[in-house]
Amino acid sequence: MPVNRYKTLRVSLILDITACRPSGTRYQANWESLDARPLPTWYDEAKFGIFVHWGVFSVPGFESEWFWWHWQGQNPPDPKCVKYMLDNYPPGFSYPDFAPQFHAQFFDPDDWADIFEASGAKYVVLTAKHHEGFTTWPSSYSWNWNSVDTGPHRDLVGDLAEAVRNRSLHYGLYNSLYEWFNPLYLADKKNNFTTQDFVLKKLLPELYDMVLSYKPELIWSDGDWEAPDTYWNSTEFLAWLYNDSPVKDVIVTNDRWGAGCYCKHGGYYNCADKYTPGELPKHKWEKCQSVDTQSWGYRRTMRLSELMDLPSIVQDLVQTVAMGGNYLLNVGPTPDGMIPPVFEERLRGIGAWLEVNGEAIYSSKPWRLQTENATVPVWYTSKYSSVFAVFMTKPTVYTFHLSEPITAESTTVTLLGNLEPLRWAPLHPRGLIILLPELPPTPAQAWILKLDGVK
Amino acid sequence: MPVNRYKTLRVSLILDITACRPSGTRYQANWESLDARPLPTWYDEAKFGIFVHWGVFSVPGFESEWFWWHWQGQNPPDPKCVKYMLDNYPPGFSYPDFAPQFHAQFFDPDDWADIFEASGAKYVVLTAKHHEGFTTWPSSYSWNWNSVDTGPHRDLVGDLAEAVRNRSLHYGLYNSLYEWFNPLYLADKKNNFTTQDFVLKKLLPELYDMVLSYKPELIWSDGDWEAPDTYWNSTEFLAWLYNDSPVKDVIVTNDRWGAGCYCKHGGYYNCADKYTPGELPKHKWEKCQSVDTQSWGYRRTMRLSELMDLPSIVQDLVQTVAMGGNYLLNVGPTPDGMIPPVFEERLRGIGAWLEVNGEAIYSSKPWRLQTENATVPVWYTSKYSSVFAVFMTKPTVYTFHLSEPITAESTTVTLLGNLEPLRWAPLHPRGLIILLPELPPTPAQAWILKLDGVK
Amino acid sequence: MPVNRYKTLRVSLILDITACRPSGTRYQANWESLDARPLPTWYDEAKFGIFVHWGVFSVPGFESEWFWWHWQGQNPPDPKCVKYMLDNYPPGFSYPDFAPQFHAQFFDPDDWADIFEASGAKYVVLTAKHHEGFTTWPSSYSWNWNSVDTGPHRDLVGDLAEAVRNRSLHYGLYNSLYEWFNPLYLADKKNNFTTQDFVLKKLLPELYDMVLSYKPELIWSDGDWEAPDTYWNSTEFLAWLYNDSPVKDVIVTNDRWGAGCYCKHGGYYNCADKYTPGELPKHKWEKCQSVDTQSWGYRRTMRLSELMDLPSIVQDLVQTVAMGGNYLLNVGPTPDGMIPPVFEERLRGIGAWLEVNGEAIYSSKPWRLQTENATVPVWYTSKYSSVFAVFMTKPTVYTFHLSEPITAESTTVTLLGNLEPLRWAPLHPRGLIILLPELPPTPAQAWILKLDGVK
Amino acid sequence: MPVNRYKTLRVSLILDITACRPSGTRYQANWESLDARPLPTWYDEAKFGIFVHWGVFSVPGFESEWFWWHWQGQNPPDPKCVKYMLDNYPPGFSYPDFAPQFHAQFFDPDDWADIFEASGAKYVVLTAKHHEGFTTWPSSYSWNWNSVDTGPHRDLVGDLAEAVRNRSLHYGLYNSLYEWFNPLYLADKKNNFTTQDFVLKKLLPELYDMVLSYKPELIWSDGDWEAPDTYWNSTEFLAWLYNDSPVKDVIVTNDRWGAGCYCKHGGYYNCADKYTPGELPKHKWEKCQSVDTQSWGYRRTMRLSELMDLPSIVQDLVQTVAMGGNYLLNVGPTPDGMIPPVFEERLRGIGAWLEVNGEAIYSSKPWRLQTENATVPVWYTSKYSSVFAVFMTKPTVYTFHLSEPITAESTTVTLLGNLEPLRWAPLHPRGLIILLPELPPTPAQAWILKLDGVK
Repeated sequence: MPVNRYKTLRVSLILDITACRPSGTRYQANWESLDARPLPTWYDEAKFGIFVHWGVFSVPGFESEWFWWHWQGQNPPDPKCVKYMLDNYPPGFSYPDFAPQFHAQFFDPDDWADIFEASGAKYVVLTAKHHEGFTTWPSSYSWNWNSVDTGPHRDLVGDLAEAVRNRSLHYGLYNSLYEWFNPLYLADKKNNFTTQDFVLKKLLPELYDMVLSYKPELIWSDGDWEAPDTYWNSTEFLAWLYNDSPVKDVIVTNDRWGAGCYCKHGGYYNCADKYTPGELPKHKWEKCQSVDTQSWGYRRTMRLSELMDLPSIVQDLVQTVAMGGNYLLNVGPTPDGMIPPVFEERLRGIGAWLEVNGEAIYSSKPWRLQTENATVPVWYTSKYSSVFAVFMTKPTVYTFHLSEPITAESTTVTLLGNLEPLRWAPLHPRGLIILLPELPPTPAQAWILKLDGVK
Repeated sequence: MPVNRYKTLRVSLILDITACRPSGTRYQANWESLDARPLPTWYDEAKFGIFVHWGVFSVPGFESEWFWWHWQGQNPPDPKCVKYMLDNYPPGFSYPDFAPQFHAQFFDPDDWADIFEASGAKYVVLTAKHHEGFTTWPSSYSWNWNSVDTGPHRDLVGDLAEAVRNRSLHYGLYNSLYEWFNPLYLADKKNNFTTQDFVLKKLLPELYDMVLSYKPELIWSDGDWEAPDTYWNSTEFLAWLYNDSPVKDVIVTNDRWGAGCYCKHGGYYNCADKYTPGELPKHKWEKCQSVDTQSWGYRRTMRLSELMDLPSIVQDLVQTVAMGGNYLLNVGPTPDGMIPPVFEERLRGIGAWLEVNGEAIYSSKPWRLQTENATVPVWYTSKYSSVFAVFMTKPTVYTFHLSEPITAESTTVTLLGNLEPLRWAPLHPRGLIILLPELPPTPAQAWILKLDGVK
Repeated sequence: MPVNRYKTLRVSLILDITACRPSGTRYQANWESLDARPLPTWYDEAKFGIFVHWGVFSVPGFESEWFWWHWQGQNPPDPKCVKYMLDNYPPGFSYPDFAPQFHAQFFDPDDWADIFEASGAKYVVLTAKHHEGFTTWPSSYSWNWNSVDTGPHRDLVGDLAEAVRNRSLHYGLYNSLYEWFNPLYLADKKNNFTTQDFVLKKLLPELYDMVLSYKPELIWSDGDWEAPDTYWNSTEFLAWLYNDSPVKDVIVTNDRWGAGCYCKHGGYYNCADKYTPGELPKHKWEKCQSVDTQSWGYRRTMRLSELMDLPSIVQDLVQTVAMGGNYLLNVGPTPDGMIPPVFEERLRGIGAWLEVNGEAIYSSKPWRLQTENATVPVWYTSKYSSVFAVFMTKPTVYTFHLSEPITAESTTVTLLGNLEPLRWAPLHPRGLIILLPELPPTPAQAWILKLDGVK
Repeated sequence: MPVNRYKTLRVSLILDITACRPSGTRYQANWESLDARPLPTWYDEAKFGIFVHWGVFSVPGFESEWFWWHWQGQNPPDPKCVKYMLDNYPPGFSYPDFAPQFHAQFFDPDDWADIFEASGAKYVVLTAKHHEGFTTWPSSYSWNWNSVDTGPHRDLVGDLAEAVRNRSLHYGLYNSLYEWFNPLYLADKKNNFTTQDFVLKKLLPELYDMVLSYKPELIWSDGDWEAPDTYWNSTEFLAWLYNDSPVKDVIVTNDRWGAGCYCKHGGYYNCADKYTPGELPKHKWEKCQSVDTQSWGYRRTMRLSELMDLPSIVQDLVQTVAMGGNYLLNVGPTPDGMIPPVFEERLRGIGAWLEVNGEAIYSSKPWRLQTENATVPVWYTSKYSSVFAVFMTKPTVYTFHLSEPITAESTTVTLLGNLEPLRWAPLHPRGLIILLPELPPTPAQAWILKLDGVK
């Protein structure tokens, strides 16, 4: 994941047309045509996915998955990374020398998929290739720099695919367009991207192979920002993906397809990492967030204070969904192939909460209002004729005030997880007062009121 | 820690005399004299300590800290351990070959001590030498098989000592008498312990050195059970420890000093690992317990379901203290020197609970009754004129019944963490009904009623 | 180097036209045109070169530089290689995992070049890329599978170039066309070489880069035999090399440019490895031979009996030169970067012999007769008006009979290394008897008679 | 082997009484008694032995087997060693961390023994423990610092013993008394050797075990010089060795048994390493010498110029035997367990020479004169009625003058390796002139004249 690159980001969302095209239409290799493709419906319904950053960067597991760049790419280098290498490795030890230590010996894709399923997530996105260029599948175009030729000696992308799909979860792949240190890329860059050696000899052949081999339902593109989409041949690739690829009907992609594309072109929008919009976006979007706030990849030195706790995660999920987004929560497995228990605890915690409250999340739509703050802050979602009001602060009184819903006589109010309807009274001109029961304790610290028959 | 060796244990506790000896008395090297020594008071007051298992076993981090024995000692060997080695190491790879991979490169004793202090523990016990024989300090009698000569290249015992003592915590050392594979020990064993080569050339010189070097306030002896205390020269060592060592006035020891000694001789009693007495023991005791229920040492493959959750730990602590015991909770750091975040979360969780409720734990005494079950199960502790009733089940009603305390008019009842006294009513012939407030949410799920002026 | 693949070779040499073309002529990309290029003269004058096989294969150093193929390529695999890996490495250890152990930490190119110069060699050929595909220079087309990105972290080709050229030796590079396990190559092969993905995306871009970067005076091509030259685009490459490359005037190449090319097309002919013609070839040729008769790359298990001794090497050199060939003698450095002393001893031994006898070798031409056997076997070379008769068997008598030279009165005979002319008598119709002096002892066991003024 | 410690040595040899004691006599634990023991006859007859330095020091293979001391013991440290470690290892890497890399995976004791036998040596001495303290056998007193517990996982001493004895060679063991970094030794040293913790708990129990386990016929003691023999308990050990050990009748020892002992007490005398006496010693002695003049242990960086060539070795052997000594020639195997081919070449070269000339070496006695220089320098040995004159310079004339032998009519002279007797003429008052044949070429460059019937 890129770090710190959009610090002063100002996003102006554009109007989005997602009217369905008649089947049989072919997309053209230009943004106008490609952007007009409707997003396959599974994605918006899913709401919650798991992001998995796993690669050679998991071996040093230091600072973040950007370790290589911080150590040897940026100028000046990060002194912590430099010191870490000086203190613990022989002089001359290089990043590729880490690869044979990427053992993945405990990797059990079914265990992972069980945890992901238990979290309530509906899709899983694995790094097929991060900016380091190492593919976690046996790419012909990345010989001896992939997970079968060295390290795990195993097709990680393929093995996880099977386990994930056996549980009816959707499967996506993260792919970085650029590779920090690939000499072909660096040469093109030096030529101001007037040459395309890297794209034609490495990137695209590999990407086509990846799609054909694993038939992902989501491509999470990244690493696009240094060059325009015309360098990456993005529109040609997407036209093939939408028209002729084996996943043409189900594939979802994001918006990182070249400098200037994010928040503007492609499939759904990620905009920046950990992006949080201020108002309801007009285009389907996704927030990606990592349990470890310091890193997407595994860090051996992570401390509790640097990790999101369960209430923060659930709150983030709720707000994202209320704003029309999907929530892609990231965990970094160890180079041994384990999900650290503290991550497992978070994921199972979300799942336990969704078990009770998922009705308000999955397949929901934003309501006409996203949030209000009467008794305590509340976030709204809706589904058909139901409106859901989620609150994460325990009120100090039992009378709960919502100022926006317009009730009718037939209106009923329940607390999700509670069978009995709650007593309530209308307010004028709008709003209502609800008499809360004692709130059941939940480690997620979020409760949901379901209002049927309100406007 | 020994595993599964007391499965059918039947303990008959003996009467214990802890009357103070006049100062100046010297202890004799026999159990009658040694057992008569009063336990230094700090220990009973402390109630809660942290146990740390760290050693070469942390490197494989597989199955448990008994890995070496399960792999190459027991007959037949544990097939999982055998398979793990076959699958991941070259033939001939031996356990000592793991030592150079014990890097401890992230070990920051102050970080550890901060976490331990935050947990509310009052003492810390580190493995100075486990059954593998590897000393985590530079023992002259364990050349090239200690943490300074190889692996961390650092005095782990000494470095942690300083950090722990800077926070006014007491410091103890775990020491295994036997060493599974030490050839000197094995020769003595073959001679039915009629020779003492191992004890005289290795064990005792090292143990004396350890005491003189680190001045521990607690020696957690272990690995005693294969030979009688006469083989180990235990009484001679303890007599020196109590009479002439630099820690003679503060030192606390346990009861593992030879076959047949546990639960019978020594300082406080551990009896078996994870020992839970059925009635109030007559001798001071300690329950040691590990967050990871499968292992005392770090396991790379641990899953959430194998770990104790916070409520279980707090419940265990409470019951132990109610029964007069101390609670020694174990965590296994990684070979890199980190406390896994999931352990940190447990420890800080206990600390947060003790912050509110510690009054009922530290320096408390068992009450005349240990437990009762009126409204919900309750465990009692006491201090001076206060009696504390701890409950871990949330009652479904607000009227809380205690059947045993005898109230007076002056009796007051409070919920720890709440300022206001609670309303209550006496019952006849004994007991009372308390009107509970709404219970504050706590991840530990345990609340304490303090009763002043009851009998 | 390929092994055992020409066991039953029968070579029919074709007539060779080496008449000089007027300068300014451009070569066409066809064999007729390319084969007509005269060989730059430095090569035939040099006579003796050093071949150096160094790569990742030097790390296992087992069986030969074909280790990877014998272990995992051929069917069935070589059981010795399989057993070696089973016995000494963890399961799943792959060949690329050896790369980080290729340290070259003692590699001093000046030391090597000193030894090569002391051997009397006039050119040095280093493996820039063997069949394993690992480049010993930082090829952009072999990312993370080259000596700068991993292992030595050093440009071996470039560093040796400088040292060799500082001593006025010529510098050549060995380059394998095919790469056993490159997935692009394997895909082309599966397509019966109807596709050229490997050639166009990997091989040729790399080869052009190599020439432009290091300006080698010799390209020792290999690994050509599985596909026709039309697959490799050999003639196009050679046309560029001869017409437009920076080394167009000095470059020498061999004959391994596609199935059926060897002994037929290209520059000089290697024909098979260790090729020894039965009669005087009509085309310039080179015999490559390894001191270690079992391997071209370093073998950790080499025994004395498997190595050529000095007399055998000198004899081989002499016979090769007498037959119009060049002699390219191979040594395999250790992965640490040392020339094993036993190889150094051979090389310095040849140099000591050439110091005295080089006059008969360098810039010599085959005589009208190559060999005869009167007193003892004799091999002839010639230079201008001198004829040299080399014998490697110490005669038992002092009268030495040569049956072929036709003497004149002015004929003089000397023993190289001796100042005084020798006494001789003519025989009829041809030949002469020479009175030998006591032969100076020489570890090379070869002496040369120089005859001036004979026909 | 100690290095450079006797640079200015001046040895005054004392008179030696080796008259045989009646069997049944017991030796006392004092030098007068022990020194009076006659040396078992096999030793003087053997003349030529092979010394093998093999241990953890073979892994770094840098500078010499004293690497550890030069790096971390001496003050100031050797900057080359310090730099080597800084350049190639992570900070904190310690010497014991080398042990797991001592693989010995190619060690075939029969191969070694074949080479040793082929060299003509009659005994072999292996380092059972060098100053690093690592035992190449499974010593109970060196747990986890021996070749079975780590590294080779094999009993090197035992495995070589069997192979050597199968070839009827005698087997000796090198044992260092002191251990540079053993903390028990360092503590005794700090106490000015007034304590004997190291000797009683480590050294002697181990040494007794070694003798009982392997029944060596020679103990090559070393590392004695820092402390008096009274510290080492040397005389007690030797008395046991000579009186009660299982090798009491055959055991031979040297003279390194405490400060001041060398060249004075013990069995035969080594005096300094590479000691060369100026005149005929009165006590049996041995010269130890290494093919690699810079090191006794394997050096990865050895160059040809640093190695003894065959003529130098044979000359050294001859001069040593002529002076009444034995010659113990050292080779350092690789950590992989191979004898480097350049050493094998030396050893087989000596064997080839001894095949022809051994008659003058084995079981010979010094003659009344050791050397003279008439035609060329000559060294004498004798056996029964034969006198042998060895010369290493090829005379420029065929008349060979010996000035010292007193001939009789019956005197016969032959060149070893030649069947026919040589013609000779007496000189007055003594000496003779011999007519040499053409000398057969020999890589050893040494020839021997045998004179029968001279005085």
